[in-house]
Amino acid sequence: MRKVAILGIGQTKIDEHWDKSLKEIGGEAAFLAMQDAGIDKVDALYVGNMLSSTISTQNQLGTFFSDWIGLWKQESVKIEAACGSGAAAFRSALMAVASGDVESAMVLGVEKMTDKAGKDITASLATAADADYELEQGISFVGINALIMRRYMHEFGWKHEDFAPFSINAHANALHNPFARLHEKVTTEKFEKSSNIASPIHLLDASPVGDGAAAIIIVPADKVPPHSRILVTASASSTDSIAVHSRRDPLFLNAAYLSSKQAYQMAGIQLDDIDFFELHDAFSIMAVLSLEACGFAERGSGVRLGLENKIGVQSQLPVCTRGGLKARGHPVGATGVYQLVEVIQQLRGQCEKTQVDGAKIGMAQNIGGSGASVITHILQVG
Amino acid sequence: MRKVAILGIGQTKIDEHWDKSLKEIGGEAAFLAMQDAGIDKVDALYVGNMLSSTISTQNQLGTFFSDWIGLWKQESVKIEAACGSGAAAFRSALMAVASGDVESAMVLGVEKMTDKAGKDITASLATAADADYELEQGISFVGINALIMRRYMHEFGWKHEDFAPFSINAHANALHNPFARLHEKVTTEKFEKSSNIASPIHLLDASPVGDGAAAIIIVPADKVPPHSRILVTASASSTDSIAVHSRRDPLFLNAAYLSSKQAYQMAGIQLDDIDFFELHDAFSIMAVLSLEACGFAERGSGVRLGLENKIGVQSQLPVCTRGGLKARGHPVGATGVYQLVEVIQQLRGQCEKTQVDGAKIGMAQNIGGSGASVITHILQVG
Repeated sequence: MRKVAILGIGQTKIDEHWDKSLKEIGGEAAFLAMQDAGIDKVDALYVGNMLSSTISTQNQLGTFFSDWIGLWKQESVKIEAACGSGAAAFRSALMAVASGDVESAMVLGVEKMTDKAGKDITASLATAADADYELEQGISFVGINALIMRRYMHEFGWKHEDFAPFSINAHANALHNPFARLHEKVTTEKFEKSSNIASPIHLLDASPVGDGAAAIIIVPADKVPPHSRILVTASASSTDSIAVHSRRDPLFLNAAYLSSKQAYQMAGIQLDDIDFFELHDAFSIMAVLSLEACGFAERGSGVRLGLENKIGVQSQLPVCTRGGLKARGHPVGATGVYQLVEVIQQLRGQCEKTQVDGAKIGMAQNIGGSGASVITHILQVG
Repeated sequence: MRKVAILGIGQTKIDEHWDKSLKEIGGEAAFLAMQDAGIDKVDALYVGNMLSSTISTQNQLGTFFSDWIGLWKQESVKIEAACGSGAAAFRSALMAVASGDVESAMVLGVEKMTDKAGKDITASLATAADADYELEQGISFVGINALIMRRYMHEFGWKHEDFAPFSINAHANALHNPFARLHEKVTTEKFEKSSNIASPIHLLDASPVGDGAAAIIIVPADKVPPHSRILVTASASSTDSIAVHSRRDPLFLNAAYLSSKQAYQMAGIQLDDIDFFELHDAFSIMAVLSLEACGFAERGSGVRLGLENKIGVQSQLPVCTRGGLKARGHPVGATGVYQLVEVIQQLRGQCEKTQVDGAKIGMAQNIGGSGASVITHILQVG
């Protein structure tokens, strides 16, 4: 495999962009990435998206965007792995460049969610679960996560308020990220008083939907000058059963465990080497389970990392340094690309008030469904 | 890039499978491919599908199938490029194996279309076109192809009946393919008398929808004994504008031209070396335009290849040797994989009455939208 490096990044503010079309938000991120990279063309485009066929009656999103952003004739394709679509698209682009067949690739994560009513968005998001065995029972995607969280609290004796630090940290970091969906300080009291949307999940446990797009351009490593170069040193994808009831242990994200383990091995690093972790906090319970599966906490004790102040920007393991899904926002198919853009911002030292001092190795983990598809990437300065 | 070879194939009969679920038809093809390959596990799964999110309220089809067919833990992802999804998925798998990161990969093209009413299927298929500029006008996907065909007939002076040989050839070949959707002899008279569904397109110009799945397993070439080995010697993808009105020349499939040219170069072959061509005859006009773009006929004269009996199994350039989209059927996201399975069947010499004598080099071309995404593959014995 050829080594691959980052050439440019771009992102839009996540919001309810009712004045902008799917084309426009995707185009904005793509043009920003090309501007950042100093080029106006790439060989191939990989689009991560989950919902455009239902929300925007638009399929064939690869060509839809290669056409719109002026990449006429160039190869393009859409990759979908539910909320893991962004990182899955990044991995596809990586394989194409690593194989030697493609010399430069853009990954564009894009999602336009808010053009439909809330109930339609909820129904669309539920397609990440098993239609035959989960949706058939009428459960929503939040409902599935609520079952997992309730079981976790029961099994390990945690209270709802114990999860507050994850929401508080994400919101505190998002205050300094101009692209974040929410700019609002959260306290434990606010967290507890926020409405109960699917018990025990409160509104402030859950990431907000939104419209947004993020883009990254990658090239072979030898095309980028070695000083200040950012390399993709690991990419690993693993899966679990799509329905939660089929898992041997619904409280252990086995695919997150496997893909992170494989990523550490591929990058040749230890847990301690990781300077920060952009994790997939679609719900606070997912942040906790992800930390446990990746080896940062014992089973049942991930909550403790928050309670012991170990997740802040200047702490042991900074997570969600730009706001995470919780406060930066979760435009589902775009999220995995936002995470990677944020890792790159940290490694470039561009994060100002939420900069992790001396960040050299960053990890991002994107999760599709309730732990069904998990893609882990490690990026390093070098 | 590592060289890649075929290890196994599987396919289901294309039909209205109201007694089988999406899971079951996909699983059937996947298990047949594993049986054919003599293995029970692969490293990664690439699913080509276009419509499951709208027709079956199911996304995350990669993991949906890796779970169902027992590939627990293994990487999986869905690739979508409208009706070109199957070949796009095959190309993604190819990149992953060629890069050295994946040792064995399954490509599964699967589509369950007939569980909804005709008008819903028509609406879903229209998402292959440009939602902002084409669908907004109320045109269907057949309608777009009808505009192209009418212009072609006007420009080059051909009559509707001149297109009959493509339909007749496809149906004649499908009579000997047990997996084909339609087993019905077509004559010029029948062709002309079939109902006019979007003038000038008659029913017998158009490929039928259907439920179906096809699968292929690929591995590095050195894992397969050299005698009777089938290699993937070229894979090339190109795009055009998604909306037909944006093209400089709506009667020339520029993406088909570019991807086929690149494929010939990659395989190191000339046009004459190609023993047969599984082309994308979603409508008879598409068969004609594809032949012209790939260099088999002059502009405006592709129709002549049919009229001069040059497309039959024992002729100059056999096309649609197993029935093509027209008669084998067109389960959209699965079609590109069916085409490749059929190329492999020919190269293995398994086609009995429609066997192309001494077939050593076969080409397949899969088209997404009305020429927007085009993926060309060349497979060779060797």
